[in-house]
Amino acid sequence: MADIRFKRAAIVGPGLIGGSLARAMRKANIVDAIVACDKDAEVAARAAEIGVADEAAAFADAVKTADLIVLATPVGAIGDLCDALNDHAPEGVLVVDVGSTKEAIVRSASALRSDILFVPCHPVAGTEQSGPDAGFAELFEERWCILTPLDRKDEAYQTAVVSATKLWEAVGAHVEHMDPVHHDLALAVTSHLPHLIAFTLVGAADDVESVAQAEVIKYSAGGFRDFTRIAASDPIMWRDVFLNNKEAILEVLGRFSEELAVMQRAIRWGDGAALEDAFSRGRALRRAIVDAGQETAAPNFGRDQDGH
Amino acid sequence: MADIRFKRAAIVGPGLIGGSLARAMRKANIVDAIVACDKDAEVAARAAEIGVADEAAAFADAVKTADLIVLATPVGAIGDLCDALNDHAPEGVLVVDVGSTKEAIVRSASALRSDILFVPCHPVAGTEQSGPDAGFAELFEERWCILTPLDRKDEAYQTAVVSATKLWEAVGAHVEHMDPVHHDLALAVTSHLPHLIAFTLVGAADDVESVAQAEVIKYSAGGFRDFTRIAASDPIMWRDVFLNNKEAILEVLGRFSEELAVMQRAIRWGDGAALEDAFSRGRALRRAIVDAGQETAAPNFGRDQDGH
Repeated sequence: MADIRFKRAAIVGPGLIGGSLARAMRKANIVDAIVACDKDAEVAARAAEIGVADEAAAFADAVKTADLIVLATPVGAIGDLCDALNDHAPEGVLVVDVGSTKEAIVRSASALRSDILFVPCHPVAGTEQSGPDAGFAELFEERWCILTPLDRKDEAYQTAVVSATKLWEAVGAHVEHMDPVHHDLALAVTSHLPHLIAFTLVGAADDVESVAQAEVIKYSAGGFRDFTRIAASDPIMWRDVFLNNKEAILEVLGRFSEELAVMQRAIRWGDGAALEDAFSRGRALRRAIVDAGQETAAPNFGRDQDGH
Repeated sequence: MADIRFKRAAIVGPGLIGGSLARAMRKANIVDAIVACDKDAEVAARAAEIGVADEAAAFADAVKTADLIVLATPVGAIGDLCDALNDHAPEGVLVVDVGSTKEAIVRSASALRSDILFVPCHPVAGTEQSGPDAGFAELFEERWCILTPLDRKDEAYQTAVVSATKLWEAVGAHVEHMDPVHHDLALAVTSHLPHLIAFTLVGAADDVESVAQAEVIKYSAGGFRDFTRIAASDPIMWRDVFLNNKEAILEVLGRFSEELAVMQRAIRWGDGAALEDAFSRGRALRRAIVDAGQETAAPNFGRDQDGH
């Protein structure tokens, strides 16, 4: 049914996202063969072992006969990978990435040979787990994938953008085009800042000397445990996000800190009306997210499966 | 099997927690009759209508022949309820509350008649939903319930503490005794600060003028949606928590803000090593919480039920 097909897809970094895309492409029946490569050869071997890829190979061998190359590494690796693509990628190949920041990647892509057709992509999907075993074919279903195409008017590139769109639609995603600077700001709000806050809260939990970690664990159902999910995400991936989207993240962090100062003052002054007002915004927004198909309506995320 | 039984339990505030305790007591077969009352008569009527309670009544009628009174209101109402108990509660009755702060409640309880046996309790359990329909019998299973008994040495009171312990154990909770001041600090870390941060993040999401709310909703799967769960919690309940645990919350908020400033500087300076180090703490803590039976091991809280 999908009007797109690849003969040989090279997955560079077959972890949660790369491995899920491999599985999803197979499920959608839009690929003949998949080859995995990774700077850690054991990761590529594992992907082949569990059937996520048909074979594992070194980068040069993986990409040289591919008609689709998926860069699914931490964003900090994309610059070097672009250099390597210039050395090894075949003419006319479609390249997509899956990185959570886009402006820095668009910049790296400007150094590519013009016959390498790189369409920067960000599927807004994931879990807190990582590695080839963590992936699953349904990860992108009903999620949004943002494309930030390069500023190229040539027909070959326009065709590549259409192919990238069909690829993501074939695995169940909704596709949207966006300016990379706006992408980085929007995702700073909806993803990068939430991760920073979660990492910080979990890191600060042992700062109160008189509260033992055993107590933090026992009473985590009071709310803390929710934050540990995204704080359990891959540290390298997230380090690279913060190194590559500094300005937007500092901007939205500044807004958050202002808002937090306002809340702090309301608590100090015992301003119940201000607190109640601020606390009343959450339900409508959550309902809108549920209605948009981006969240479960089940209480507690449905984690208590015998509850209700 | 449970070595405890009540003839008539009065649930004052049959919402998520009170209604769940009513259901759980019935499931454990430790109660003969349940009467619900609420300052909103429709809430009590609804509890009776759906079978959470056998009947709805006004406060005085509900408590006057009860042998167990459960105060399941926002903590700001407990002071007035203690006055009302002095007027209407029968001699020797066991009273428990379920409030998320304890020092202020212990203070209110000191004004009670000495034949009213009030054992302050905090079951660390809940969902983001509220009202009689939101409750379920399994809510307290494997969760911790913290008791902060009053400073009374008399035998009647000691017996009441044992009864309260048996009540919570009968509904599946683990019981722990704690000093109320320490309770309020420990829960500021594991529950109150996380809620404040989530309310603040969700409230700040529309602060960035150039990012539309529609975008926040669409790309919320990048992490933001996690925070909307606890930010959808009852605003009145949480207002009262912040009004009644001011010092402890301001203390842990100060620690959090310091940690956030450190992270902000690491981002500004591009200090990848510091970021990676800070981001690496989350996985071990989450694993410990899962191992302690306080969280699901499923990725994404298991919310993607067809995933994996």
